[in-house]
Amino acid sequence: MHSQVADLIETLIHDEHSAESINKAISELTPDDVALALESIPLAQRKQAWANIKQANRLDILVEMRGESRQLLLRELDDAEIEELFTDVDAEDLLEITDSLPDRLVDLALNQMDNKQREYYQQGIVYDDDVVGRWIDHELLIASQSIRVSEALRLLKKSTPSYTDMVYLVNRTGRWVGCVKFDVLFKAQGHEPISNLIDEECSFINSETELTKAAEMLERSSLSALPVLDDNHILLGRFHAGLAMETWRLEHEAQQMATAGLNEESDLFAPVKRSAATRGIWLGINLLTAFLASAFIGIFEATLQQVVALAVLMPVVASMGGIAGSQTLTLIVRGLALGQITRSNLKSLLSKELKVGGLNGILWSIVIGVVTLWWFESPMLGLVIGLAIIVNILMAALSGVLIPVLLDKLRIDPALSGSVILTTVTDIAGFVAFLGLGTLLLL
Amino acid sequence: MHSQVADLIETLIHDEHSAESINKAISELTPDDVALALESIPLAQRKQAWANIKQANRLDILVEMRGESRQLLLRELDDAEIEELFTDVDAEDLLEITDSLPDRLVDLALNQMDNKQREYYQQGIVYDDDVVGRWIDHELLIASQSIRVSEALRLLKKSTPSYTDMVYLVNRTGRWVGCVKFDVLFKAQGHEPISNLIDEECSFINSETELTKAAEMLERSSLSALPVLDDNHILLGRFHAGLAMETWRLEHEAQQMATAGLNEESDLFAPVKRSAATRGIWLGINLLTAFLASAFIGIFEATLQQVVALAVLMPVVASMGGIAGSQTLTLIVRGLALGQITRSNLKSLLSKELKVGGLNGILWSIVIGVVTLWWFESPMLGLVIGLAIIVNILMAALSGVLIPVLLDKLRIDPALSGSVILTTVTDIAGFVAFLGLGTLLLL
Repeated sequence: MHSQVADLIETLIHDEHSAESINKAISELTPDDVALALESIPLAQRKQAWANIKQANRLDILVEMRGESRQLLLRELDDAEIEELFTDVDAEDLLEITDSLPDRLVDLALNQMDNKQREYYQQGIVYDDDVVGRWIDHELLIASQSIRVSEALRLLKKSTPSYTDMVYLVNRTGRWVGCVKFDVLFKAQGHEPISNLIDEECSFINSETELTKAAEMLERSSLSALPVLDDNHILLGRFHAGLAMETWRLEHEAQQMATAGLNEESDLFAPVKRSAATRGIWLGINLLTAFLASAFIGIFEATLQQVVALAVLMPVVASMGGIAGSQTLTLIVRGLALGQITRSNLKSLLSKELKVGGLNGILWSIVIGVVTLWWFESPMLGLVIGLAIIVNILMAALSGVLIPVLLDKLRIDPALSGSVILTTVTDIAGFVAFLGLGTLLLL
Repeated sequence: MHSQVADLIETLIHDEHSAESINKAISELTPDDVALALESIPLAQRKQAWANIKQANRLDILVEMRGESRQLLLRELDDAEIEELFTDVDAEDLLEITDSLPDRLVDLALNQMDNKQREYYQQGIVYDDDVVGRWIDHELLIASQSIRVSEALRLLKKSTPSYTDMVYLVNRTGRWVGCVKFDVLFKAQGHEPISNLIDEECSFINSETELTKAAEMLERSSLSALPVLDDNHILLGRFHAGLAMETWRLEHEAQQMATAGLNEESDLFAPVKRSAATRGIWLGINLLTAFLASAFIGIFEATLQQVVALAVLMPVVASMGGIAGSQTLTLIVRGLALGQITRSNLKSLLSKELKVGGLNGILWSIVIGVVTLWWFESPMLGLVIGLAIIVNILMAALSGVLIPVLLDKLRIDPALSGSVILTTVTDIAGFVAFLGLGTLLLL
């Protein structure tokens, strides 16, 4: 799989490729592979390759692209080209790309849609893009609660969509009544009313549910799909295993990118100015925290001038606090995400983390103290750094528990902002403890 | 869902709970919810709660626990209790918990298994635990290639396992021949030979495939499950959507924990000594890199003594390099994971990252230079830090591209070790540039 994509990347970058050779390569790949290859080449070549791709394949590829890549490409197209692209767009595709389009083009696409698709689009667009309601699958097996088994089987013969292992039953007003699993249906007699076969344990998902929560519910159900209902129990469609797998895959990518303050939609070859701008914001936030730490060091300028070894060892104190703190933070952030942390176990947890911190603090303060003693031949300096390490690791354990819990209470995602705040706290606590003790004991 | 778990946690921590009240609460929850609640309370209470849980529910709960939590619990049980626990264990459960068991107990469990399950266990255990072969699902619809449609439909009536949307066909020796989708089967005539209906596009997964790769393949197929074959095309079983969803969910958790050098199996209330030991290793590795940075600062002791402001500003230089580097690193690590980065686009990528770094370097060096000028009233110091920032951000861009690519070539996972190596490089480069320029221009 990957090597075919690599081949296509190679072709698109190097060769004086013809439209024919590209379209031949594309015909053997899925649209998401082609999208990936396009995202892997510089913008100039990407534009050229796009011009050579057959109109019929373009929309599918565009839909599979990451947000920023798609925006960059759409920027290069004129309205006539975009209009042509959208002659055949359905609700699901338009919902996927709508955030990268100006309103004018969304309207243009909507005007070309049939009524059913337009209705689906308008149902979906009212939901945020991390919510099930936005990504509902509308291909489903649906039957009136008043039919018999034989009629349900006939329905099944007509068409069985992917990820289907049950028939959903509704009443006359479209309200969900329940579901009948295939294996029950297959065993039943043809004349039996289907409403006798309803699965009492069948669950459903509310359309306002977050995607990751919905994926967890689907996994627990051991079913290939669950019905999605609105607040009035009207059956809107399904959330199926394909959507759940996609949810987790993208969540995984988003989490990885977020650790560096990046968005998962980022393009590998975004224009320099644009990349510099998005990354600059994160650099600026971190610069503020670094200057804050510097300001605290500045308080001790006089001490540093007399004992320059303190300056040399500052990174050691900061590093130990930062690492110990992020270990505690990570454990707590996971616990919060899993719903493990409640008022009742917070105290035991804090006490356990402080004990772990104390033990590692003592152990590493001895190691660091001895290395310092040997390096600078000053027992007093060894004592100062040893004490500072213990203080900083304990402070790290305390902040590692309290910062995420506090952020969570304030409804701020601790996975995103926790680590910047924590590092700032441990940096400052470490420098103040180290340089403060140095001032007291070494001058 | 979460609030029920929270209630159970509360009950288990506070109340003088009776066996009856626990088992009542448990009967309303799934085994993984109970496992989660047990993992959320201190070890003493956990042991007590376990003693009150009915024997019939224990194995399911144990299987759902995270590795470390399971180990901690098993350590408390004597052999008779464990033997009782394992009277009813199947291959899948034993494969899940086998790594937390001593060999003696694995043998004990195997002795109580029936032949079929023991065979499945022995088939699975030869694979690593991140490989499909280990987690194969053995409940599947399988038919001889020589039967007719009507016979296949009868098979379906007998039992339809979860996540099933096709029948797998094998020849007499158990080799995979192909698959027939339900929607084709339902439309066919009863007397038609099933081998006429084989889906030409049906793909399969080799048993050596990594779990995340398998999940991607399954997602692309739009099927609920794919057949898993060994190298000789013998049909071993299935990889289904439930396994794929679990794979991603656990991968997501593992990635989060790995950022702090932790394992996803870590217990929230692991004993203090044990936690301290595992975390201590990561602290030690980072300590080495911090001392390395200190050693480089030490070279410039004489300079620091004369210009103490350099010491005050060191965190700013280190922070900017570290953040800029990790942004590039993250983008490249994702690109490598997606298969986007090849020999052919590496040069364009490096040049683009250097341009982004150059732009941000110039911008932020001006900001930082001006702040420094204003703070320390020294234009020369402003110049020194400005130049150091540019050098360090360019160095960060260079290392951010080259370190992960190099690690990948050496078959070391850049997602794990990349960030430690990168920070060490940017720290040292930053300090040397800053203090070196300071020595040249300020003394």
